[in-house]
Amino acid sequence: MNRDLEARMDAYIDRHEATIVAELAQLCAQPSVSATGEGITAAAEGVAAVLRRRGFEVRVEPTRGHPVVFAERAGGAERTLLFYDHYDVQPPEPLEEWITPPFAPSLRDGKLFARGASDNKGHIVSRLAALDALLEASPELPCRVKFVIEGEEEISSPNLPAFVEDNASRLAADGCIWEFGGVDEEGVPLQTLGMRGICYVELRARSAAHDAHSGLGGSIFPNAAWRLTWALGSLKGEDERIRIPGFYDAVVPPSAEDLEFLRALPDPAPHYLAHYGLRGFLKGLRGGLELRRETVFSPTCTICGLTAGYQGKGSKTVLPAQARAKVDFRLVPNQEPQDILEKLRDYLVAQGFEDIEVALLGSEPPARTDPHHPLVALVVEAARDVYGAPQRIVPMTGGSGPNYLFVRRLGMPVVTLGVGYPGGQVHAPNEHVVVANLLQGAKHAARVISRFAEGA
Amino acid sequence: MNRDLEARMDAYIDRHEATIVAELAQLCAQPSVSATGEGITAAAEGVAAVLRRRGFEVRVEPTRGHPVVFAERAGGAERTLLFYDHYDVQPPEPLEEWITPPFAPSLRDGKLFARGASDNKGHIVSRLAALDALLEASPELPCRVKFVIEGEEEISSPNLPAFVEDNASRLAADGCIWEFGGVDEEGVPLQTLGMRGICYVELRARSAAHDAHSGLGGSIFPNAAWRLTWALGSLKGEDERIRIPGFYDAVVPPSAEDLEFLRALPDPAPHYLAHYGLRGFLKGLRGGLELRRETVFSPTCTICGLTAGYQGKGSKTVLPAQARAKVDFRLVPNQEPQDILEKLRDYLVAQGFEDIEVALLGSEPPARTDPHHPLVALVVEAARDVYGAPQRIVPMTGGSGPNYLFVRRLGMPVVTLGVGYPGGQVHAPNEHVVVANLLQGAKHAARVISRFAEGA
Repeated sequence: MNRDLEARMDAYIDRHEATIVAELAQLCAQPSVSATGEGITAAAEGVAAVLRRRGFEVRVEPTRGHPVVFAERAGGAERTLLFYDHYDVQPPEPLEEWITPPFAPSLRDGKLFARGASDNKGHIVSRLAALDALLEASPELPCRVKFVIEGEEEISSPNLPAFVEDNASRLAADGCIWEFGGVDEEGVPLQTLGMRGICYVELRARSAAHDAHSGLGGSIFPNAAWRLTWALGSLKGEDERIRIPGFYDAVVPPSAEDLEFLRALPDPAPHYLAHYGLRGFLKGLRGGLELRRETVFSPTCTICGLTAGYQGKGSKTVLPAQARAKVDFRLVPNQEPQDILEKLRDYLVAQGFEDIEVALLGSEPPARTDPHHPLVALVVEAARDVYGAPQRIVPMTGGSGPNYLFVRRLGMPVVTLGVGYPGGQVHAPNEHVVVANLLQGAKHAARVISRFAEGA
Repeated sequence: MNRDLEARMDAYIDRHEATIVAELAQLCAQPSVSATGEGITAAAEGVAAVLRRRGFEVRVEPTRGHPVVFAERAGGAERTLLFYDHYDVQPPEPLEEWITPPFAPSLRDGKLFARGASDNKGHIVSRLAALDALLEASPELPCRVKFVIEGEEEISSPNLPAFVEDNASRLAADGCIWEFGGVDEEGVPLQTLGMRGICYVELRARSAAHDAHSGLGGSIFPNAAWRLTWALGSLKGEDERIRIPGFYDAVVPPSAEDLEFLRALPDPAPHYLAHYGLRGFLKGLRGGLELRRETVFSPTCTICGLTAGYQGKGSKTVLPAQARAKVDFRLVPNQEPQDILEKLRDYLVAQGFEDIEVALLGSEPPARTDPHHPLVALVVEAARDVYGAPQRIVPMTGGSGPNYLFVRRLGMPVVTLGVGYPGGQVHAPNEHVVVANLLQGAKHAARVISRFAEGA
């Protein structure tokens, strides 16, 4: 590593705070709501433009949905670093809860407020600032850098698998920096090395051609809402054990090292209890290591939604002909969504629920990066000068995402660094980034690119 | 009975067909939607006016909801016959399915189409026509006649119990003619002698202050939708047996005579299977007596509605903090709603579901009229000349209503006669009454009043 270069890059980034914030504000002023399509095309072009300005060759690639921005610039070394980001944002609703409008970026108390200020445009701008700092020091980048910036991350990346499949060789790289990252409640930066998979299904019961009067059919007609209730009850009991035969077969328990990583993280229990107003956790968990372990290393079966019959005010004596449940299974290594789906279907039929249709609404397998990959140590250590501490390792997070495409299909380590913090109101009203975190993220990214070029 | 009088009344009614239909069309042209309040006041005044025109003393009595029209006229005998009817109607939606607008009555093919043409304005007009026929024959009615015509029947009569309690002596009578009646699929008139009770509750689960991300909380946070699913599953299993201890304790099985009544009714199975597109009935029922028995003499536990979390298109990875179910219990003699409610609450607590709130949304106890009451035989036999057959006895129907106020609180027999038929689209688009049924209902009512005055 080049301490002198890193100090100069830090100074460059500090000196350009206003420019960096202004560029972020400009990107955030452009709506890009993937759920509705609002502003998507202009946002993709906007992101392409800021990369072209940095000397990247950029293509806005069409997909069956929103376009993917792919950008590439050669560097001094042939080693290649790939950044995965997204230019789309969550819908800004409920609008009335925003102190300033979501697409009118506002700087207050050292924070920039806007939809996308953190997720994901803040991360993107921190990478751009890092590139600027590197290019200020040298006319060429130290290594080859690629960006894949999609427009559908907030709607589960439905077209990214095909894009990756069709462009595997263009996407080839020696490592990937993932779209999120930042610091925890204590200001310590985090390195997240895996995501659970997901198998999201809708269970659909249909018991008749149309609803009946409950006074007529209550004793004699099948009721879709009861069929659904019993089918759901067969999946998981109050002991929280999922009853689908073979469901747990492929589960790899966390290693001793994983548990060590978890042990080093702060206890999330007080925050969860207070923020969600919980009386307690499931399975008698109280906090600490066991809670952290259960949160990410256990597979789940969650009812995300129920709908049947009359749901308005007061009473209506109706016997519903249809009922539906949204159910998500979070999967841990080495569970596979397709295998779980088949086991679910077989089990429901075996339990006599052949009348329940199981529709797959989405799936992503779990994926983890080896904590011993040299890129992990590089990124973890590069944080030390910026944050006063190396990153804490989060061996896996409870959520799911398209990281498996990079880890498993493209075969590269995926690591995280970024500009977030727990108070950033991501996906919520008054989303914001702390400007100090934005600069820290830029400095961290600049170090990572620079050191990565030296080989790691 | 006075055969000559009855023949003259029949002739009067036949002669006045156009006037009778015109009066019904006039009442139906006035909307009176209790659910929304549309036209309620004008409709109450309209019903009051048609009774005043027949020499009744009429008061439009305010309640905490829609007014009750109470009317009374003395007659030759002191015996008193009370008519219970309602001037309110179901909402007409979906409007686009009406061939002619719901509040623009239209006469086609011997049927009058309008919202309320059958339920309940057709019944009201048939009673008025009967009074006219009686008053044509004699300047005074043969007995005292009272009407209680409420405006909230279609919304479960929430204010009728208090009205009956406050006006018990004014409502005193020797018998009550209920608001519905008519013929079955074979054109044979029916005498319905009882209604199941109902205890309608909402089960409410709340597991947190607000929803969580399913990737975060799936393994560790309580989930309101799961709590609700398990609580519901504890109430009834796939064997259809309700598991609340003591639920069946008070059930009085149908008598041998009840079963004889049921045996004499047509088999509803083919109609149910075809109309509702059913693959079959519950409990292996195939039709015939066993199906009829189960339909009305079994208590039920019906899920009428389910709501939780995300119910829109596609997937949302949310862990719901709230979930609700609407559940109706239909009760048979001698089950009581309050007792069932307490047993339900106790049971849920005993099963560990103290977190599930049970809100009572409505209740009516079951009530039956003794088939051996002389009024029953009078009404059943009075049908013979009009329909060519006496009424068939339906010992109980699966629905619920405020008949218990008259049977149990006021202590009078409640019997049915009227103008309906199974194709009348009651509560549905294109509701109508067959004019021939309207006239039959009037003739039947005229005979009943006349014979009742002679003592029965």
